[in-house]
Amino acid sequence: TKSGSSQSTGTSTAKSYTSQLVDTAEVVREASRKIRTAKIKWDQPQSVLIITKPGDKALVSKTRDLVLWLMTRPRYGVENGLIVYVDSKLQKSRRFQYTDILEKHSVVETHLKFWTPELCRDNSSLFDFVITLGGDGTVLFASWLFQRTVPPVMSFHLGSLGFLTPFDFAKYQHHIDKVIERGVNITLRMRLTCTIYRCTKSSHSSADGQYRVRLRQVRRSKKSATSYVGDWGPCENLEAAGITPDGDGPEMDPMAQVYAKETQRSHQQSSPNGSRVHDQDSMESLPCYTTYPEETFEVLNEVVIDRGPSSSMSMLELFGDDQHLTTVQADGLAIATPTGSTAYSLSAGGSLTHPEIPAILITPLCAHTLSFRPMLLPDSMDLRVCVPFGSRSTAWASFDGRGRVELRQGDHMKITAGSTPFPTVCAEDQSKDWFKSLSKSLKWNDRIRQKSYA
Amino acid sequence: TKSGSSQSTGTSTAKSYTSQLVDTAEVVREASRKIRTAKIKWDQPQSVLIITKPGDKALVSKTRDLVLWLMTRPRYGVENGLIVYVDSKLQKSRRFQYTDILEKHSVVETHLKFWTPELCRDNSSLFDFVITLGGDGTVLFASWLFQRTVPPVMSFHLGSLGFLTPFDFAKYQHHIDKVIERGVNITLRMRLTCTIYRCTKSSHSSADGQYRVRLRQVRRSKKSATSYVGDWGPCENLEAAGITPDGDGPEMDPMAQVYAKETQRSHQQSSPNGSRVHDQDSMESLPCYTTYPEETFEVLNEVVIDRGPSSSMSMLELFGDDQHLTTVQADGLAIATPTGSTAYSLSAGGSLTHPEIPAILITPLCAHTLSFRPMLLPDSMDLRVCVPFGSRSTAWASFDGRGRVELRQGDHMKITAGSTPFPTVCAEDQSKDWFKSLSKSLKWNDRIRQKSYA
Amino acid sequence: TKSGSSQSTGTSTAKSYTSQLVDTAEVVREASRKIRTAKIKWDQPQSVLIITKPGDKALVSKTRDLVLWLMTRPRYGVENGLIVYVDSKLQKSRRFQYTDILEKHSVVETHLKFWTPELCRDNSSLFDFVITLGGDGTVLFASWLFQRTVPPVMSFHLGSLGFLTPFDFAKYQHHIDKVIERGVNITLRMRLTCTIYRCTKSSHSSADGQYRVRLRQVRRSKKSATSYVGDWGPCENLEAAGITPDGDGPEMDPMAQVYAKETQRSHQQSSPNGSRVHDQDSMESLPCYTTYPEETFEVLNEVVIDRGPSSSMSMLELFGDDQHLTTVQADGLAIATPTGSTAYSLSAGGSLTHPEIPAILITPLCAHTLSFRPMLLPDSMDLRVCVPFGSRSTAWASFDGRGRVELRQGDHMKITAGSTPFPTVCAEDQSKDWFKSLSKSLKWNDRIRQKSYA
Amino acid sequence: TKSGSSQSTGTSTAKSYTSQLVDTAEVVREASRKIRTAKIKWDQPQSVLIITKPGDKALVSKTRDLVLWLMTRPRYGVENGLIVYVDSKLQKSRRFQYTDILEKHSVVETHLKFWTPELCRDNSSLFDFVITLGGDGTVLFASWLFQRTVPPVMSFHLGSLGFLTPFDFAKYQHHIDKVIERGVNITLRMRLTCTIYRCTKSSHSSADGQYRVRLRQVRRSKKSATSYVGDWGPCENLEAAGITPDGDGPEMDPMAQVYAKETQRSHQQSSPNGSRVHDQDSMESLPCYTTYPEETFEVLNEVVIDRGPSSSMSMLELFGDDQHLTTVQADGLAIATPTGSTAYSLSAGGSLTHPEIPAILITPLCAHTLSFRPMLLPDSMDLRVCVPFGSRSTAWASFDGRGRVELRQGDHMKITAGSTPFPTVCAEDQSKDWFKSLSKSLKWNDRIRQKSYA
Repeated sequence: TKSGSSQSTGTSTAKSYTSQLVDTAEVVREASRKIRTAKIKWDQPQSVLIITKPGDKALVSKTRDLVLWLMTRPRYGVENGLIVYVDSKLQKSRRFQYTDILEKHSVVETHLKFWTPELCRDNSSLFDFVITLGGDGTVLFASWLFQRTVPPVMSFHLGSLGFLTPFDFAKYQHHIDKVIERGVNITLRMRLTCTIYRCTKSSHSSADGQYRVRLRQVRRSKKSATSYVGDWGPCENLEAAGITPDGDGPEMDPMAQVYAKETQRSHQQSSPNGSRVHDQDSMESLPCYTTYPEETFEVLNEVVIDRGPSSSMSMLELFGDDQHLTTVQADGLAIATPTGSTAYSLSAGGSLTHPEIPAILITPLCAHTLSFRPMLLPDSMDLRVCVPFGSRSTAWASFDGRGRVELRQGDHMKITAGSTPFPTVCAEDQSKDWFKSLSKSLKWNDRIRQKSYA
Repeated sequence: TKSGSSQSTGTSTAKSYTSQLVDTAEVVREASRKIRTAKIKWDQPQSVLIITKPGDKALVSKTRDLVLWLMTRPRYGVENGLIVYVDSKLQKSRRFQYTDILEKHSVVETHLKFWTPELCRDNSSLFDFVITLGGDGTVLFASWLFQRTVPPVMSFHLGSLGFLTPFDFAKYQHHIDKVIERGVNITLRMRLTCTIYRCTKSSHSSADGQYRVRLRQVRRSKKSATSYVGDWGPCENLEAAGITPDGDGPEMDPMAQVYAKETQRSHQQSSPNGSRVHDQDSMESLPCYTTYPEETFEVLNEVVIDRGPSSSMSMLELFGDDQHLTTVQADGLAIATPTGSTAYSLSAGGSLTHPEIPAILITPLCAHTLSFRPMLLPDSMDLRVCVPFGSRSTAWASFDGRGRVELRQGDHMKITAGSTPFPTVCAEDQSKDWFKSLSKSLKWNDRIRQKSYA
Repeated sequence: TKSGSSQSTGTSTAKSYTSQLVDTAEVVREASRKIRTAKIKWDQPQSVLIITKPGDKALVSKTRDLVLWLMTRPRYGVENGLIVYVDSKLQKSRRFQYTDILEKHSVVETHLKFWTPELCRDNSSLFDFVITLGGDGTVLFASWLFQRTVPPVMSFHLGSLGFLTPFDFAKYQHHIDKVIERGVNITLRMRLTCTIYRCTKSSHSSADGQYRVRLRQVRRSKKSATSYVGDWGPCENLEAAGITPDGDGPEMDPMAQVYAKETQRSHQQSSPNGSRVHDQDSMESLPCYTTYPEETFEVLNEVVIDRGPSSSMSMLELFGDDQHLTTVQADGLAIATPTGSTAYSLSAGGSLTHPEIPAILITPLCAHTLSFRPMLLPDSMDLRVCVPFGSRSTAWASFDGRGRVELRQGDHMKITAGSTPFPTVCAEDQSKDWFKSLSKSLKWNDRIRQKSYA
Repeated sequence: TKSGSSQSTGTSTAKSYTSQLVDTAEVVREASRKIRTAKIKWDQPQSVLIITKPGDKALVSKTRDLVLWLMTRPRYGVENGLIVYVDSKLQKSRRFQYTDILEKHSVVETHLKFWTPELCRDNSSLFDFVITLGGDGTVLFASWLFQRTVPPVMSFHLGSLGFLTPFDFAKYQHHIDKVIERGVNITLRMRLTCTIYRCTKSSHSSADGQYRVRLRQVRRSKKSATSYVGDWGPCENLEAAGITPDGDGPEMDPMAQVYAKETQRSHQQSSPNGSRVHDQDSMESLPCYTTYPEETFEVLNEVVIDRGPSSSMSMLELFGDDQHLTTVQADGLAIATPTGSTAYSLSAGGSLTHPEIPAILITPLCAHTLSFRPMLLPDSMDLRVCVPFGSRSTAWASFDGRGRVELRQGDHMKITAGSTPFPTVCAEDQSKDWFKSLSKSLKWNDRIRQKSYA
C-alpha cells in the first residue's frame, strides 16, 4: 500500500514535507513576531564607547558633558558610573579640556579611557555598548569602526530624527537611564560582507592558508585568434603551478562558465567547418588566471558598484549561488541591506524594506533595459558581481558611501549576508522606530488632505 | 560584580541576547539555503486532480490524452496507473467523450473520477497532487478552488512559460515520470488571508461563538454637532446591548483610535471656550457600532483595494499590528505576496521579490504623495486596511483579479500571512525556476548589447 | 548646374528648406521667450465674476467683503467700482445677507448681479475677468463652467499655495489693485477637447447637420463564424440607409483598420484552404455600425480613462492622427495637459511639464508592459482612445476628476488641443509662478542638506 | 465708455491679447501639423559624405560597394553620379583597396574625395547630404563631427532598427534613389549648446573680444570669518583690474545671487548684534573671481553631469533664465533633447518625448529627494548648472556619451537650445518613424495578450 512503501523507504514524502515546511514557516513567523516586540533586560553595562560626528567642533563640549555625567552618575549601588571610552583625538583637543576635567574630577583618572580605530577593530568586547552622537553618517562610521563583532549601539540625533538615530540628545539622561534600568528592544541589523577578488595572471601563493586559490585555463585558438577561458584545470596543473588547493578543492568560478559559453559562440561563428572549440589541436595553452580575495568590508547600508569616472556604461555580470542571473547594463548596481533601503537604494528606485526582512536588495542605477527592475533576493544567497574581461571600462565600488575601490576587468566582488550584524537599541520597538523614521525623514505620512474639486 | 549580578537575576543580557539572535539568524539562513535546493522523494502518489483553463475547448482532447496516459501507465509494480479526478463538467462534454473512453478502457471505471469545487474545498486530502494545464490564470484558479489545504501543484504551460507554469506540456510524459520517480523541489508559496469586516449599526449576535464582536461608542456634541467615535465601551454597555463577548474580550479596533483623535481635534477647533471633548455634558450617546468578519479569501498573488467606479481618489487607513501606519491617498493599494511581485504589484512599481522571502508587499496605485513608495513588511505583521467614515467614496476589493467586493465607510479588511500556503512543484529548483520565468516572461535578461558610440 | 536647376524648378530644396525650418524654430523660440515675460496692460476691466469653493460656508462672508470692496472702490475716475457677478445661490443665502447689503449700499442695486451656469456657458463675454476663491478645485470648476471662451482668471488661495492659485487672499486688495493698474502676465493654459463617440447599431440621423455620420460594414463568415468589421461602405450604402453624409465624406474611423486586420488574422487561422476574407461568398452582410459624437468636455488638467468597477484590466486602442500607436493593457490612461502634469499625471509617473510646452501627456496607469512609459506627444496631434469590441470590460472616463462616463465596446474618445484655452493671471510670470508652486506644493526644493558620512 | 478708453490708450487689452495668443497658438499648431507630414523635393544633391561605424572592419567592403554605386549611378541626365567623400583613413586601408578601384573605375579620380574632421567642421556646405552606416552611435558621431551647420543626414542600420537609423542598408539602392527622386520628410532635431564656464582667480583677458568677462567680489568678515561672494563690482573695479567689458556690460552671474543669500544668512547667525553683512568695516576685499567660457559642445542626445569618480553625492545648483530653480542633490543630472528622450534620459526615468516638441528634458540621476521628478522645460529657456564652492566633490560632464570634462567648484555649464539643429531624413515621416523605432527598439508595442484568469 501507499503508506507501507513510505514507511519502508523512510523517505519524507511530498505531503509530509509540505506540512513540515508549513509548520516551520509558522514557527519562524511566530518567533519573529515575538522578537519584534520583546523587551530584554540590559545586564548592568559597565563600559561605553562614544562616537561623535567627526570634525564637528560644536559637539566637543556636549561630548564632555555627556562623558562626565556617565562617569559620575552612580549605578548599581556603586558610587561611580560607567567607564567611558572617547576618541583618542579628544585627549589633546583644546575644547575637550582633558587636563582640566582630570584635575576637577577624580573619577576621570579611572573611568575615562581613549579609543583608537585599532582598539575597536580588535577588542570590541571591551565595550558593553556604544553611544553615537550625530546623524546616520555617524552610525555608519560606527559600523566602519567595528568591522567584526559590534556592541549594541544607542544612537542620538541632534534635533532631526534620522533613519538610524531614534534618540533625541536633548534628553540624553532620561533615555540612557531608562535604557539601562528598564531594558531595551534591539534591532539586529544585517550587514553585507563584501569581498573583493582580484584577478592575477600569476598564480598566487596560499602557503598561509588564508587565500583560497582558484585557477582558470585560458586558451587561444590558432585559427580564429579567439581567446577561450576554459574549465578549471585538473589537479596536475595546480601542482605544476606549485599550488596546493585547500580541502574543498578549487572553488568554482562563475565567470568561467560565462566566458566559456561566450567564446564558444564566437568561435563557432568563425569556424564554419564545424570544428569543436574543445578541439585541443586548435588551441594553445596560456598561463592560468587566478583570483584571490584581497579586501573585505562590512556594510550596513549598501555597496554601490558603478562606472566611476568612465563615460561608458558599465557591464557587470551578476551571479546568485554561482548561477548566472543577468548581465547588467546600467550605470551601476546598488546592493543594499533592508537598513539601507531608505538610503541610496531608495534614490535608485528600490522599495522601502522593513529591517526585519531577511533580504538583499539589488537596485540597478539607470538600467539600460526597462525590464531590469529593483529586486529582492534571500539573504541566504551568495552574490557575485563580476567585471567581465570584455568590459570597455572598469567599475568602482564604494562601501556605505566610503572607500572607492576600482574593480578591473577580471575582478569580482562577493557579497553575502554578514555573520556580524549591527545591533541597534530601539527607542520603542523596531517597527515603531522604523515607521517613525519614515514619517519624519521622508515626510512619509505628510499628506495634503483631499481637496474638493468643486 | 557584573557577571555575578547577571547570574543571580537569571535575565538574559543585551550581549548574550544579541549573540543568540545572531545565532538564530544564522540557523534560519542556513535552513532556508538548504530548503531552496533540497530534493525530496515523492511518496508514490496515487491520485491526481487535473485543472484546465476553463472555456478553452482546444484543451479538452489534450486533457483526455493526459488522463488516459496517467490511468494506464503502470506505476509502483502495479498494472494500472493513477486515480485521476477531472472537472465534473467534462463528464457530459462532447469533446471529452466520456462514454466512449469508458467503453474502450476498462481502467476508466475504477480510476477516473470527477471533481466539483465543493469536493476540492472540503476534501483536498483526497488528492496527492494537482496538475494544471494553461497559464498563470489556471494556477490562480487552483488556488481559488483550494481555499484551505492545498496539495502540491504541478503546472504546465502550453507553449509560453509563465511565472507559475514551469513545465512544458509538450513533454508531459517525461516531466511527470521524472517527478514521480526522482523526487521534486517544492516552492511553498505564501498566500494572504484576507478577511472582510463589516460595520453594522445594530449589535451582532455572537451566540455561535464564530464572530468576535467589537463595539464602539459614537457620541455627538450638542454644541458643535461633531461626531465622536469613542473608546470601547465598558463591559456593562456590552451586556446592555445583549452581547456576550468571547473570552479574549473585545478586540481592539484600530479605527477607534484614529477617529477619536480626529474628532478631538475638530472639536477643539470649534469650541473656543476650551471645553474638553470628554466633557460628558456636551455629549449624547449614540448606538454602538459593530464590525464583524463576513468573508475570507486566500490569495496567491494579491488583493487590490481601489476606488472602483468612483472618480474621487480613495482614502484608506493602513494599520500594521494595530498601529496606524499611514493614511493612503491614492487610487488604491495592492497588497501582494512575493509570488505576486511579478504580477499586478510590478505594474504598480513594486520590486521583484524572490518567492522565498517572508514579506508582504504594499504598493500604492498612483499615490498622491511622492513619498509613499512601494514597501515590504514582515509576513508576521497583521495588516488592516480601513475605509474611514469620512471617506468620500467607498472602496472595492478584488482577489487575484477575481471577485469585486465593495468596502463601505466603516468596513475594513484584515490581511495576514495565510496558514495554508500553496505548494508548487519546481522544474529545477525555486531559484532557477524564478529566474528563468523572469527571463522568459519579462524578457528580463533580454538586453541589447552595448554599442559603440563611435 | 545645380543652382540653376533649383531656380528653374522653383521647388524648395532640402537645404533651403532646412534653413527655413531652422529660422522658423528660432522665431518661435524667441516669440515664446518674450511671451513668457511680457507684461500687458489690462484695459480697464468693468465687470468681474466671482467663483468660490462650493459648499464652504466660511467663505460666504469673505465673498461679501470682497464684493462690496470691488463695487465701492472707485476706478478710472468714476465714483463706483466694478460690476460684480456672484453665484445666484448667494441671493438667498442667509450668510450673504443680500437684502441687508442692498439696503445699506446703494451701489448694490446697479453693480451686483448673479450668474448661473447657463449664463457662463452662453455669455462669457459679459465678464472682463474672473476671480476664484479656494483651491485648485475651484479653478477646475471655473474651467467646467466656461466650456467655451474663458475670460482671464485670477485665482486666490486661502493660505496654502496651489498649482493654479498664485494669489494670497489675505492681501486681495493689494493684488487686485496692482493687477488692474499695472498690467499682468497671462498664462494661456491649453485645454483638451474630449469628444465621446458612441457606437450604435442603427444608423443615426444627421438631418440637423450636427452629427457627422460614419458607417462601418460588419460581415460574418458562414464557415468560420468569425465577425469581420470591414472597410467603410460605399456611398450607395449610405444612401440606402437614408443618410446624407456631410460634405467631407465619412470620416475615416481608425477602429475599422484595426478590426479588419485582427479579424483577417483570425479568419486566416480558421480557413486553412486559403480563402480570402474578402470573398463575398463566405460572408453575410450585417447591419452597419455607426459612431456619432455624443458629448464634448474641455479639460484643464486631464481626462482619465480607466477600468472603473471592473476587476479585469482594460484593453484600449490608442491612435494618433488616425495611426494605430499601441494597444494599451493597463488599469487605464491619463491624458493630460502640461497644466495637469502636476496633478494626476504625476501620481501615475508622468514628468513635470512647464505650462508653456505645446504637448499632450499620455501616462499609463499600472501598465502591464514595462516598456509602456509616460509619453509626450505634440499638441497638434489628434488622439483617439477606443474600447475594442473584443475588450472584456468597458472603460470609464472622468474629466478633471468629474463626470464618470462609461465607454462601451465600440465607443471611442477623440482628444485634441482645445481651441479655447484657459487664461490665468500670473502673480509674477508664468515661469516664476510655476516653479514657486512646485516648491510649495510638492516641497520640490525642500531638501535635507548633504550630511557628512563621517 | 469702456471701449473708448481702450482706443484712446492704444494699449493691447487683456482680452484682445488673449485672443491674439490663442490665434498664435493655433497658427503654430497648424504649422507644426503640416511640417510633420510635408514632403519636400530634394534639389538634385551633387555630393555626399559617408560616415561609418569606426573600427568595424566588416563595414569597409560594404562602404566600397556603396561608394562605387553612388559614383557610377547616372543622375540628372549626366553619365556619372554623385561626388562622394569618405573617411581619409580609408585611403590607406587594405580592405578599401583605393589604388585598386582607382585603376578600375575612372570616375574615382574625379568623384571620390576624402574628408577629415577639420573639413567637416569648417566646410560643411561642401556636402549636400550625409549617409551614415551603423547604429545610433554613428549618427551621434556625425553630430560630433558637424558641430556647426549640419547637412541632412540619411542613416542606415545594418539589421536592427535604432532610434536614429530608420533605413535598412540591405536595400540602400532603393532607398537612396527614392529619396533623391521623390523628395523627403526631414526631422529637424534640436541640439543643445553646452558651454563650460571656468572659474578663475585671476582676471581674464578679453582683448580679442571673444570672452565676456564677468567679475565677482569676494569679501571676508573679520569678525565671523565668513566668506561672502558679493554683487558684481562696479565699473571702476573692472578697469582697475585692467579689463574692458564688452558693450553689454558684465553678464549677471546667477551664482552670485545664491552665494550672497547663503552667506548673508550664515553671517546673520554669527553676528547677533545685528550688523549688516554689507557693513564695509567688517569686510576685507579679496581678489575678484571671474568665469569665462572655455569650451562649447553641441549634443544631439544629452549632456550628463554627474559625480564621476567621487563617492560623495554631487551638489549642483540649477538655474533657468538666471532664476535659481533648485539645488540638486543627486548622483547627477541628465539634460536631454527630445531626441535623447529614448536614450540615457529614459534609463533615468524620463518620459518618451516626440522629437517635434520644443522642450529640454531635465532628469535627475538617483535624486536624494523623492520630489525631484523628471521635468520638461521650454527650449527657449537658458539653463545653467553650477558646481557651488561649497560642494564636497567636483562634477564631471559627458556629451552624447563622449568627452569627460571635470567641472570644479565655481565652474558652471550653460545649456541652451542650439542654433544649428541636426536634420535627419525620414523613412516615412517623423511621427511614423518615431513610433516605429519605439516599437522595434523598446519592444514598445510588444505586449502579452490579456489572459483569462479562469
